[in-house]
Amino acid sequence: MAESVFVSLTTDFGAAYTGVMAGVVARIAPEARVQVLSDEVTPYAVVEGATLLAQALPYLPVGVHVGVVDPGVGTDRLPVGVLTGRGDFLVGPDNGLLAHAAEALGGVVDARVLAEPRLRLKETSSTFHGRDVFAPAAAHLARGVPLTEFGPPASLLPLHTPKPYTSDGFLSATVLYADAFGSLVLGARPSDLVDAFGLLPYGTVLDFEGHPTPWVKTYGDVPVGSPLLFQDSSGFLALGVNQGSAAREFAVQAGAHVSLHARA
Amino acid sequence: MAESVFVSLTTDFGAAYTGVMAGVVARIAPEARVQVLSDEVTPYAVVEGATLLAQALPYLPVGVHVGVVDPGVGTDRLPVGVLTGRGDFLVGPDNGLLAHAAEALGGVVDARVLAEPRLRLKETSSTFHGRDVFAPAAAHLARGVPLTEFGPPASLLPLHTPKPYTSDGFLSATVLYADAFGSLVLGARPSDLVDAFGLLPYGTVLDFEGHPTPWVKTYGDVPVGSPLLFQDSSGFLALGVNQGSAAREFAVQAGAHVSLHARA
Amino acid sequence: MAESVFVSLTTDFGAAYTGVMAGVVARIAPEARVQVLSDEVTPYAVVEGATLLAQALPYLPVGVHVGVVDPGVGTDRLPVGVLTGRGDFLVGPDNGLLAHAAEALGGVVDARVLAEPRLRLKETSSTFHGRDVFAPAAAHLARGVPLTEFGPPASLLPLHTPKPYTSDGFLSATVLYADAFGSLVLGARPSDLVDAFGLLPYGTVLDFEGHPTPWVKTYGDVPVGSPLLFQDSSGFLALGVNQGSAAREFAVQAGAHVSLHARA
Repeated sequence: MAESVFVSLTTDFGAAYTGVMAGVVARIAPEARVQVLSDEVTPYAVVEGATLLAQALPYLPVGVHVGVVDPGVGTDRLPVGVLTGRGDFLVGPDNGLLAHAAEALGGVVDARVLAEPRLRLKETSSTFHGRDVFAPAAAHLARGVPLTEFGPPASLLPLHTPKPYTSDGFLSATVLYADAFGSLVLGARPSDLVDAFGLLPYGTVLDFEGHPTPWVKTYGDVPVGSPLLFQDSSGFLALGVNQGSAAREFAVQAGAHVSLHARA
Repeated sequence: MAESVFVSLTTDFGAAYTGVMAGVVARIAPEARVQVLSDEVTPYAVVEGATLLAQALPYLPVGVHVGVVDPGVGTDRLPVGVLTGRGDFLVGPDNGLLAHAAEALGGVVDARVLAEPRLRLKETSSTFHGRDVFAPAAAHLARGVPLTEFGPPASLLPLHTPKPYTSDGFLSATVLYADAFGSLVLGARPSDLVDAFGLLPYGTVLDFEGHPTPWVKTYGDVPVGSPLLFQDSSGFLALGVNQGSAAREFAVQAGAHVSLHARA
Repeated sequence: MAESVFVSLTTDFGAAYTGVMAGVVARIAPEARVQVLSDEVTPYAVVEGATLLAQALPYLPVGVHVGVVDPGVGTDRLPVGVLTGRGDFLVGPDNGLLAHAAEALGGVVDARVLAEPRLRLKETSSTFHGRDVFAPAAAHLARGVPLTEFGPPASLLPLHTPKPYTSDGFLSATVLYADAFGSLVLGARPSDLVDAFGLLPYGTVLDFEGHPTPWVKTYGDVPVGSPLLFQDSSGFLALGVNQGSAAREFAVQAGAHVSLHARA
């Protein structure tokens, strides 16, 4: 099985610690093909990491996918491995990070605690399970070690992401994260927009906290520097600024609540 | 052809969206060798991306090179594929981004609109053509699909980069971009320096907007913290600060005009 | 030898220039497996780069490891190649950057000046030896060119890293670097803590410049937002803030001296 198994890494570690993880995988499973999906998740941002994994992994080859956004590293949160309906293995901390991705890949077929000491590095630190626990687990899975050998069954913790609130002419949602362009990806979908405002033709202008903001298809549909509301490439609603940064210009961060109103 | 075809990715997307593109290539063309050349182009900075591609790609293996700096994504700008004289394929938006690179790789042999739906992902978003159009095109080219199958001929749009202005004892140029060290890469070359100041021996001190700035070979030729004018590794003139950041210390950004004068 | 030789790259260049280096390796040694260990070393920070290489490389496969943090590029500092006791080759500037890594990989077996012109690119710039000297050297080593063919013997310069100072109830140390979470990695180890304070049970609270700071195993052992003193994953003492950034919250940078006192 080992030849050309695809292994992806997603962390909030930056380049160096993620590079060490890639090196650990390459040492144990030299045949695996390792790709960093992202080393730029906002530190400690479990919801951002979970959302990224859920939207990105379906586009990646079936393989072993490691996610590490792990504020509880070294405490009693469990390290887990998950077999998905699509045939992928997910590896990471059981803090909700993997929940949406498992669902997006066909659901949980099996989940195991990564307890087996011989499938970790010999010395395990208290602060870098990415290197000492998760990367070795991914490499051993890539080499064909059965998931059942890692430890007892686990039941994956869910991730509670905030739901949008709608009423007639009003939509409130939580910012899941700001993307690389500063666009604010919201925990709401076009169907929520319909709930709040009815069927909206493109070009309809809503009020985003005092800013007239049209519902459009893409950035270039509004002038440079103007705000827009659009469906982002993962299916969520998003607020952007054409060739600007909504996060910076509106001083909004992940976790904030934002509101859209019909205009008077 | 597919075995070991080299595919490079250059974007202003940051790690995650670029990682998704790499995953799409790996799914369609598992034999390809995918390398991120840069995911750190300044957002929307077409000139910076075009300059980077033109200076970097000649050092990379002949292969398929994707560039995405695409402020017009989802509008009527065309997606294109280009066959170069060196034998590379370039893939990206037809907004000038690929023009200098095509020239640096031996010129345009053929250019096509990427119109064929079966060579895209099944669902195409309005905001992420990197994932839905360009990465699939690169993967199919890497697998050997002929460029002519992608769509009708296109004529690559040129990129108009600002020219330097010289007179006796004076050189004005535009900052193309600031590199990772904060050095300001200028749209001017040593020959322009000769036009303005005659043959300059290394060590000659010019005036950069009030700062005495010597023309030298490398950073270490001036004291730590001092400014320098040098030929950067891509052949352009550049303004730097030894072990500092010229962009930060002089508060200058891409697109700014800077002037060099002979000292009185 | 060439098949599947592992080549790692560690620089302070950011993505683009590091990507060019990876491309140069791939052109000369298409069989090599190139991985960026880090392109995010703080610019010019030789001690940070040296510490990263020493702690990371033992986890990577035996291979060719390039390190470039090179404030003296183009001056008379020497480019070197090193054969280590573990069988790796190290490649980079002889400015101390490689010294700790060589030690961590079993010591220097041979060291050579990278002087041979035919093992460089044909044109060598004054500012980008990563592309023109070090990446080609790594690729040729990966292809099996003997180190002795590169040039005359060199004696690797040592790196002088600051030592901690301890007295009864007092420890002073230098910040080696701030990691991706803003944790301050100190030039001191748990044995220095014992020298200063005797055997410290976990949970003991020390005084870090006015802040009560417990000695604990991991981030989650203190409340969110609280400081902690811990042994980081490379064996050094480190100061962190749970789900925060010690570097930002205490406004401390690499090179600063920090002190820990017993509490009255």
